[in-house]
Amino acid sequence: MKKCLVLLSGGVDSSTALALAARDFDEVIALSVFYGQKHERELKSAKDIAEFYGVELKTIDLNAVFADSDCSLLANSEAEIPQESYAEQIKKTGGLTPVSTYIPFRNGLFISSAAAVALSNGCEAVIYGAHADDSAGNAYPDCSPEFYEAMNAALITGSGGGVKLLAPFINMNKTEIVKLGLKLGVPYELTWSCYVGGDEPCGVCGTCIDREKAFKNARIRG
Amino acid sequence: MKKCLVLLSGGVDSSTALALAARDFDEVIALSVFYGQKHERELKSAKDIAEFYGVELKTIDLNAVFADSDCSLLANSEAEIPQESYAEQIKKTGGLTPVSTYIPFRNGLFISSAAAVALSNGCEAVIYGAHADDSAGNAYPDCSPEFYEAMNAALITGSGGGVKLLAPFINMNKTEIVKLGLKLGVPYELTWSCYVGGDEPCGVCGTCIDREKAFKNARIRG
Repeated sequence: MKKCLVLLSGGVDSSTALALAARDFDEVIALSVFYGQKHERELKSAKDIAEFYGVELKTIDLNAVFADSDCSLLANSEAEIPQESYAEQIKKTGGLTPVSTYIPFRNGLFISSAAAVALSNGCEAVIYGAHADDSAGNAYPDCSPEFYEAMNAALITGSGGGVKLLAPFINMNKTEIVKLGLKLGVPYELTWSCYVGGDEPCGVCGTCIDREKAFKNARIRG
Repeated sequence: MKKCLVLLSGGVDSSTALALAARDFDEVIALSVFYGQKHERELKSAKDIAEFYGVELKTIDLNAVFADSDCSLLANSEAEIPQESYAEQIKKTGGLTPVSTYIPFRNGLFISSAAAVALSNGCEAVIYGAHADDSAGNAYPDCSPEFYEAMNAALITGSGGGVKLLAPFINMNKTEIVKLGLKLGVPYELTWSCYVGGDEPCGVCGTCIDREKAFKNARIRG
């Protein structure tokens, strides 16, 4: 029996990854991590998506790890979340550093936690929804193919072959993910992308802009 | 200014790693992780060692990650800690699986947490004390050179070059570590190795046997 664990934030990418896993594996569990973000709206979406697919959702609080970080996504930071697209943010960083919403080694931490939970629950794979738009211009280096390959090697060697990492979207862009998700029937109305939180998405943060563009492109080009 | 973070359990290996770091870096911080172990005796040693070297010790509780593990080192497991050497344990596993005191992907989780804390505190490197005796016979695959290389690549790529992993003992055995530590003046009387806890080391668990052997060899061959 093939069993896997999906890292589920409640956003577009991880929800589509869960849909794929539900199609391809015999059994799936999901893991959401609270990391001290300014709002918990996406965790509600993770719960709704997990329920939709009938998979067990585990949640872990790892916010203590980021106690000293001043990343703008974190509740303990007074820095403001940028109101501009990633393309505009990358113009400022010149691709030399991550964007200001990069949380230090967050995906490495999430994947490592997921590997521990996966090994404890008989899962042969951890799945995460990193994609090419996120790693473009070095915005989120922990979404890059190079990082994926290194972490996959770390999981395999560090567990004695017990668990591996899958990143089915690592060479896809967000538009392609949405196109795939629409075919799979992902209930995107349940997902949440906005960094700010609140009752309605802000519409002006990087992920809101990205999400809107991906849906527009997916429907036009789909 | 060169600043690093040392993963400090309070045992022989990590305490020697701290001594090396204190010699080679301008500033050092240490990180101890509580992971749900049956006793917290080693955390006291970590505090004593950090004080001895005058470095700040940060502590994080990550025991929630191992809630579903039945590893014998964990308080939530009723499995007994083996009273035999690693060599005897490896005879039973045949080198095909980790030993029963392997905690699922623990070092990957510790290193990832350390990377996050390091990046948040201006450290250019994370240092951990894995050595060749621990990875021999696949006992602890998360101490192997292959795992170290993969995690180092993950840290570098996943942080956009912000932090790297150093494992100064990765090709040394425990005897060589103790010989080095004795030269560096490591206060081994403050360290703790025993898996069982209590007022005195049990003398019969894998780490007690390993420790005694290493000190005996280091003094004879040193």
